[in-house]
Amino acid sequence: MAAQLTGFTPRDPDYAARVRASFARQAFMAHIGAEIVHLAPGEVDLACLARAELTQQHGYFHAGVTSSVADSAAGYAALSLFEPGTGVLTTEFKINLIAPAKGERLIARGQVIRPGRTLTICRRDVYGEDAGSETLCATALLTMMQVPGLSD
Amino acid sequence: MAAQLTGFTPRDPDYAARVRASFARQAFMAHIGAEIVHLAPGEVDLACLARAELTQQHGYFHAGVTSSVADSAAGYAALSLFEPGTGVLTTEFKINLIAPAKGERLIARGQVIRPGRTLTICRRDVYGEDAGSETLCATALLTMMQVPGLSD
Amino acid sequence: MAAQLTGFTPRDPDYAARVRASFARQAFMAHIGAEIVHLAPGEVDLACLARAELTQQHGYFHAGVTSSVADSAAGYAALSLFEPGTGVLTTEFKINLIAPAKGERLIARGQVIRPGRTLTICRRDVYGEDAGSETLCATALLTMMQVPGLSD
Amino acid sequence: MAAQLTGFTPRDPDYAARVRASFARQAFMAHIGAEIVHLAPGEVDLACLARAELTQQHGYFHAGVTSSVADSAAGYAALSLFEPGTGVLTTEFKINLIAPAKGERLIARGQVIRPGRTLTICRRDVYGEDAGSETLCATALLTMMQVPGLSD
Repeated sequence: MAAQLTGFTPRDPDYAARVRASFARQAFMAHIGAEIVHLAPGEVDLACLARAELTQQHGYFHAGVTSSVADSAAGYAALSLFEPGTGVLTTEFKINLIAPAKGERLIARGQVIRPGRTLTICRRDVYGEDAGSETLCATALLTMMQVPGLSD
Repeated sequence: MAAQLTGFTPRDPDYAARVRASFARQAFMAHIGAEIVHLAPGEVDLACLARAELTQQHGYFHAGVTSSVADSAAGYAALSLFEPGTGVLTTEFKINLIAPAKGERLIARGQVIRPGRTLTICRRDVYGEDAGSETLCATALLTMMQVPGLSD
Repeated sequence: MAAQLTGFTPRDPDYAARVRASFARQAFMAHIGAEIVHLAPGEVDLACLARAELTQQHGYFHAGVTSSVADSAAGYAALSLFEPGTGVLTTEFKINLIAPAKGERLIARGQVIRPGRTLTICRRDVYGEDAGSETLCATALLTMMQVPGLSD
Repeated sequence: MAAQLTGFTPRDPDYAARVRASFARQAFMAHIGAEIVHLAPGEVDLACLARAELTQQHGYFHAGVTSSVADSAAGYAALSLFEPGTGVLTTEFKINLIAPAKGERLIARGQVIRPGRTLTICRRDVYGEDAGSETLCATALLTMMQVPGLSD
């Protein structure tokens, strides 16, 4: 019943290197300890380990951290499908925080719902992982823009 | 023309101390260097200085940072109006990133559009400040929840 | 990979009659010709046939129609899981319009992502159906509220 | 404190005629009885009178109606600033329904937050009017797209 597209063909044969190089330049991802844990055309999963620096007042991952990994994961999922010579910008996103974001690790997964020449729509689910079991803690809907001439 | 409520009467006379104490427990706010720069009933502005650790791949503030300050600013604007003995959770938000978030400082301002017993709706505008002039870089609409018994 | 809950147990054994009776009181659904085409615990699909009265300036279904069926479908999916003696209100939703909404029929399907005592989060995909084939034209994320004492 | 741009200069001297002609082709606006009650560069207000056909199950305006007037008002506010030879599409919007939409008349007002070559971001507030007094019932944030070659 869920709308899911799979088997994307990347327009840039070097998409993986491009995504990894751009991600490495997102200093904020290093600052929160986020890493790429899965990378395929249209699919980028990010994870970050629990650390005191990432918490809100009740000890959970701050909603800003949850949003940050959802945003970057979606941005790179989109970029993996973009043409060479273009860059990615987030134009907007919406996130529902549906359960406390807790556990040893936060993981953002998802799918590109519709890749477009200008706008690419992504869905992202964020899970808290604890002792091998995952709990959905947030779901987001994001719009990414392919910008010609933007170096990424 | 904009819908704006002002002159809120806080239900907790100690609202300012409560907001500051809870904010101090948000370790993530310290991690990104965010500070409260304005605090009144229903009004909390946050700012954070530009630092390499907060950037995305083009050198601007990462959308996750923009979202984080918008979220915490709105959460504390809401909490400032809550009853004693309750806490605040973000249930969802939507943000439009309308210009590159750049400058010496990022500032999140806004207003409580409607304070409610359960849900409080907030608007938040985020500005990049450079040499004293401000540019609107994002606008967000957020829903905060008053949770009885949650210690904040 | 998509977060999906199934096999909900309704708290109101008369959930189906309650949903149908409330839907019948939504005069606006009759005004746009929407009908319930699937009903199970946590699952309500709505469809409406193409008619000149429902179009925007290019002849497609108006985004307002797409939003209306997404909203009512999600509201009744939520209501089907609510306790007797409560009603449903939409508190907010976000919708991405990803392709022209065209075809003989518009269908809103989806799932309850998280049923809660106060807030229930729903996802909704809207399809345009033409000659038996369906095209995803919109996806939405909605928050429904269970309101005690509200007659539905 | 609110971000507001005013005094837009339209790029199409015939913007008013273009908006009115396109609005007249939105058959759905006639179906719900919506009319343009204010039109200036970047500003389009729509209103629709209460009628039984527009209600949800509690007798208020259906959230779909509220969304429809917010969407069309924002779309035409954007179109009023577009270049000749382009059309408008809604790419996404988010709406918070903050009070029951009731009264004799529903009015959608708002502002263009940022007009762009590709994307134009709009805010829209919807009010229920009763005996001359207005109550804010919804607020929305919308993204409109300028599409070259689309006839509007």
